[in-house]
Amino acid sequence: MSGNTFGRVLRLTTFGESHGTGLGGILDGCPSGLPLSEADLQADLDLRKPGQGPTATKRKEADRVQILSGVFEGVTTGTPIAFYISNEDQRSRDYGNLAEIFRPGHADWGYFRKYGDVRDYRGGGRASGRETVARVAGGAIAKKLLAREGISVLAACVELGGIAVDPADIDMDGAPVRPYFAAADCAPPLWDSVVAKTRTAGDTLGGIVRIVARNVPAGLGEPVFDKLEAMLAHAIMSVGAVKGFEVGEGFGAAALRGSQNNDTILPGPGNRVEDACFSSNHAGGILGGISSGQDIVLRAAVKPIASIAQEQQTINKSGQAATVLIGGRHDLAAIPRIVPVLSAMTALTLADALLLQRRMDA
Amino acid sequence: MSGNTFGRVLRLTTFGESHGTGLGGILDGCPSGLPLSEADLQADLDLRKPGQGPTATKRKEADRVQILSGVFEGVTTGTPIAFYISNEDQRSRDYGNLAEIFRPGHADWGYFRKYGDVRDYRGGGRASGRETVARVAGGAIAKKLLAREGISVLAACVELGGIAVDPADIDMDGAPVRPYFAAADCAPPLWDSVVAKTRTAGDTLGGIVRIVARNVPAGLGEPVFDKLEAMLAHAIMSVGAVKGFEVGEGFGAAALRGSQNNDTILPGPGNRVEDACFSSNHAGGILGGISSGQDIVLRAAVKPIASIAQEQQTINKSGQAATVLIGGRHDLAAIPRIVPVLSAMTALTLADALLLQRRMDA
Amino acid sequence: MSGNTFGRVLRLTTFGESHGTGLGGILDGCPSGLPLSEADLQADLDLRKPGQGPTATKRKEADRVQILSGVFEGVTTGTPIAFYISNEDQRSRDYGNLAEIFRPGHADWGYFRKYGDVRDYRGGGRASGRETVARVAGGAIAKKLLAREGISVLAACVELGGIAVDPADIDMDGAPVRPYFAAADCAPPLWDSVVAKTRTAGDTLGGIVRIVARNVPAGLGEPVFDKLEAMLAHAIMSVGAVKGFEVGEGFGAAALRGSQNNDTILPGPGNRVEDACFSSNHAGGILGGISSGQDIVLRAAVKPIASIAQEQQTINKSGQAATVLIGGRHDLAAIPRIVPVLSAMTALTLADALLLQRRMDA
Amino acid sequence: MSGNTFGRVLRLTTFGESHGTGLGGILDGCPSGLPLSEADLQADLDLRKPGQGPTATKRKEADRVQILSGVFEGVTTGTPIAFYISNEDQRSRDYGNLAEIFRPGHADWGYFRKYGDVRDYRGGGRASGRETVARVAGGAIAKKLLAREGISVLAACVELGGIAVDPADIDMDGAPVRPYFAAADCAPPLWDSVVAKTRTAGDTLGGIVRIVARNVPAGLGEPVFDKLEAMLAHAIMSVGAVKGFEVGEGFGAAALRGSQNNDTILPGPGNRVEDACFSSNHAGGILGGISSGQDIVLRAAVKPIASIAQEQQTINKSGQAATVLIGGRHDLAAIPRIVPVLSAMTALTLADALLLQRRMDA
Repeated sequence: MSGNTFGRVLRLTTFGESHGTGLGGILDGCPSGLPLSEADLQADLDLRKPGQGPTATKRKEADRVQILSGVFEGVTTGTPIAFYISNEDQRSRDYGNLAEIFRPGHADWGYFRKYGDVRDYRGGGRASGRETVARVAGGAIAKKLLAREGISVLAACVELGGIAVDPADIDMDGAPVRPYFAAADCAPPLWDSVVAKTRTAGDTLGGIVRIVARNVPAGLGEPVFDKLEAMLAHAIMSVGAVKGFEVGEGFGAAALRGSQNNDTILPGPGNRVEDACFSSNHAGGILGGISSGQDIVLRAAVKPIASIAQEQQTINKSGQAATVLIGGRHDLAAIPRIVPVLSAMTALTLADALLLQRRMDA
Repeated sequence: MSGNTFGRVLRLTTFGESHGTGLGGILDGCPSGLPLSEADLQADLDLRKPGQGPTATKRKEADRVQILSGVFEGVTTGTPIAFYISNEDQRSRDYGNLAEIFRPGHADWGYFRKYGDVRDYRGGGRASGRETVARVAGGAIAKKLLAREGISVLAACVELGGIAVDPADIDMDGAPVRPYFAAADCAPPLWDSVVAKTRTAGDTLGGIVRIVARNVPAGLGEPVFDKLEAMLAHAIMSVGAVKGFEVGEGFGAAALRGSQNNDTILPGPGNRVEDACFSSNHAGGILGGISSGQDIVLRAAVKPIASIAQEQQTINKSGQAATVLIGGRHDLAAIPRIVPVLSAMTALTLADALLLQRRMDA
Repeated sequence: MSGNTFGRVLRLTTFGESHGTGLGGILDGCPSGLPLSEADLQADLDLRKPGQGPTATKRKEADRVQILSGVFEGVTTGTPIAFYISNEDQRSRDYGNLAEIFRPGHADWGYFRKYGDVRDYRGGGRASGRETVARVAGGAIAKKLLAREGISVLAACVELGGIAVDPADIDMDGAPVRPYFAAADCAPPLWDSVVAKTRTAGDTLGGIVRIVARNVPAGLGEPVFDKLEAMLAHAIMSVGAVKGFEVGEGFGAAALRGSQNNDTILPGPGNRVEDACFSSNHAGGILGGISSGQDIVLRAAVKPIASIAQEQQTINKSGQAATVLIGGRHDLAAIPRIVPVLSAMTALTLADALLLQRRMDA
Repeated sequence: MSGNTFGRVLRLTTFGESHGTGLGGILDGCPSGLPLSEADLQADLDLRKPGQGPTATKRKEADRVQILSGVFEGVTTGTPIAFYISNEDQRSRDYGNLAEIFRPGHADWGYFRKYGDVRDYRGGGRASGRETVARVAGGAIAKKLLAREGISVLAACVELGGIAVDPADIDMDGAPVRPYFAAADCAPPLWDSVVAKTRTAGDTLGGIVRIVARNVPAGLGEPVFDKLEAMLAHAIMSVGAVKGFEVGEGFGAAALRGSQNNDTILPGPGNRVEDACFSSNHAGGILGGISSGQDIVLRAAVKPIASIAQEQQTINKSGQAATVLIGGRHDLAAIPRIVPVLSAMTALTLADALLLQRRMDA
């Protein structure tokens, strides 16, 4: 009820504050028999680690993960998998002056109105982007579950600071090794330039992330309220800074005609109905809320980071006008660090849908 | 788990197929003491009734709702409110030939791969847009709960067939009496023209719906996975034909700088912190997943109706190529009938968040 | 959250008041392909119908059930199964004077303190035993699901008015055709006698019901909080008038030694580990919260009906002393009508556990 | 779904195995502003610590708890409270030979049939009574929430090895300082004697625990499926070794007449309806599933410990007959260590019901 749990069959419950002792979670519902080690989680955590890349904060965190339960002799046992990442570089003095003031664009105001005076203001506390470390750790386990079925989740940045990758240039597979997890080789040099200008201006950037899930079997998702795109939207929109979500053509579909937007169904090899294919994928891999067997294609809009290096008008807890100049160490854009978070949430959603579907299949 | 239930504290479970006996639902968790009659539900049902307006199907349904429980002497008792709408104009012979074929853009394929041969193919069965009748009935109760707190939900069409309303012209309050629930007076004549052309072409249209919730108290929504925008995205994306969701600036935020996108917080009258206001509402009324007290502003992208009046290529259940020309009676666009559905889902989400928040406030 | 839903994968949500329009429910999560008709539900409903047997009320209700959704061409489709039973013989004038007074042993007081003045006092409203009609209808579907796997649920009365059946005489299979659903042929004559005396005295009786589930596969139930016996206890204790629950030796186990209470595990035919058997069944078919493959054996203690035909001291809504003599038509004992309710709840719990387990098995 | 979470509004999710790295949990839904320290949890943990009292194992565990999140400057912040207890004295070699064999009366067989070969057999793994350490830690927080409202939960042993405390002698308040958490001063000497004899015989004992919750406000619990006694039964029966549950008269109610079992309602001082009282408490503080304002009175039957110091017949994983003589360090009875576990589960259930009720009260 408090919104710290995600999933139905595969359930991730997370805890921890930006400047507390540490962060972690419990992933419950993972089947037994999956080979799993701390290195599996660490690999994904390293992708979102602070202090990397051109848009990064200088905060240093090893983000070293420890598995506390649920794995025995190298495989999962079906019991809850708890994991923990301790906070090392906390420097809460950087944030001390923020207890009395509401930073524009931040969660401070909402939390104050919800929880009153009792909140951990240090670095955003529970509202900090640092909570996503637990999503990434949980998502790494989900990815291993999916990989066992041949399903993969890829995510890449297709727009930064208003400069978009041409759809024709998109190459999702190359993203993990490109700066910014860029969706095309041509993008990083252009983005370096806007990043440099924005840093000089003391400002921040937003962008768009594209996510593709391949080899998802047909039949995942539930009709009506838990359509697969509804669960994915819930997952993606729950990540801080995400302001929009699309599946397939998304907002572009609104301007298409039915004859343009429908994906023609074509016979597959040998006319086996299971092997049918489609002439196009405007739907983004979901029909009537249920996966069609095509690639699932999503896009997420990411707002610019709220912590700018400029003096801003605001009010304090007494309701009086104040100015704030945010110190501390902040990223210039949520991209690229949000990219592994979004792929983790996609993986958690798909693995949950996959496990849920199994009970139907008997 | 089967996705026929929405909500946490205020829970709507729905049932029924397009061409079965009828449709309905149970709304559980409604507090006692709310005045409620069948007329309250009927008013909203009449807004989405088939056979109305320029884009409508000719199917006629009175959609007469009956309350079966939970109301005594004109007020709710706190027990589950069950309601029922019987199907009158079923004509299932129109759909008989569709049992063997997968209509492009429809749920048929996904359902076949999920449920196998056992499905009610008549008019889409459970996947039919007709299931939304139960959402609207439940949403009408949610709206009464919200109205008691002064909260209102308005929805209007801001784009149809690629022709958008200028943001400067938007007047949400006038929408209920305009054709298409149009967001501005100038829109319907333009849309009539594209509708006429599209009908002649045997094609269908998509559009964009804007939803505004006014007077929502600050503090609704839960941090992390159940951020208010995540719950709203889940709600809106669960409506068939919706392909995209935005809050506030949405995808536009990706191209803004932090200094442009942050909403400055200003002192309110008498410097009471609760009365603080904002210079703008780029955030769309939600900060850090929690309502800020500003208007909540959403947009939903609606794809064109998949049932076009043109012959389409597809396959049949044996996996072989086939053509389909869809008969029956179908709308030309999900707009305007989807508009009350989207406002119902918004109302259900907000009422659920409101009731959930209450337990925190003690 | 409001407690009108039972189950995790197979979820029953019920509605309706004793003297309202009718009662019913939605069973969600039932797999597709199960043959199902109204007659299947009616058979079980007839077992708990008012006006039958030596302890019965004279209220007459046909309890004719109607299936509103989820079944097409005689089989379930995997969509929600809604069912409805209208109230016919309401006579609410019998209860009119009870709006102002709290009947001892009834829910009146609890409801008043929970809901305040807003309640449907007619015949107990939602708190009436009449709500169990929806449990029985839902349970009938669960029993069909179980029967498909060869699992059966039997329930019988083993004690009435303090007169118990000798354990050696118990014959569960004969119960459905015996008066009182008695567990042995020798019991009904003895019970007739105590019933007659109690009726003359204007008093009421309690009893004990034994429930046995046969052929339950090993492996159902979840460790820790959702042990199979915890789910069954939740199910059984949720039936009004039940005051105690036991599995296997139950309270008797407290006085046994470990060497007496442990069930020895014996090799099965051909030493196949799956065919292992047990020397005894003190555990009642559940080990560590998980079904062992032995019969599941439960007992439920049923209190005497609170509506006695004697004047009783109480208070009214103004807090002042009052007397109440309950008119209306009431059973002398919850037995036998509670027996099919308890077997329905057991069936719902086991079918839910069975469907939940399936996802683990892939 | 995997049964590692308990509660609706106040949700405890636990993790950890007997011989793994450690155990712990996340308590989600605790309101902000509750003063809380590790010492609060430690006090209750010390009550169930191994190695204490006449029936105890010799395993030594400091059971030192660490709070990882959710508390800032000495008070809860409303975010998830994670806690962790590391395992110190693991000695898994004691259990190595048990990987191949099913111990009678233990969870081994059920787990094997559920999870197959993949299980952590060391000391029972997740099925070990050691998992209750996380229940006690979570329950300690629930007790602090209840105490703020003046509600207390007391638990005491009323029967051990078949030797019961006379109800007239019961003094719940003195239990915490008596050996065995005995409900009366006269009991421990009698129990010492049966314990000594049983230890010599290499056997184990069961018993009965009585739980009383005082000052519970009227109005807690939900009608129908989530009656307060159903939630409490779920909670209590989820503790390993519990085989029976009673509220109020329990099984004794089955032999009473309605006129004996009904609790007369009496006017309170000044005839304020809220101050009404009852002539007796046969109901155990719950009417129609809702707390009445009287003491809540429960009883739990605890079976004898399955690990006896005698050679037992069983089978091994190949299905062949085998004998087992269980080494390791085991308690002679679940009492007294189960007593704080049962009071923790009661506290968690009541605190959850209390927080759930709050939303109704607005």
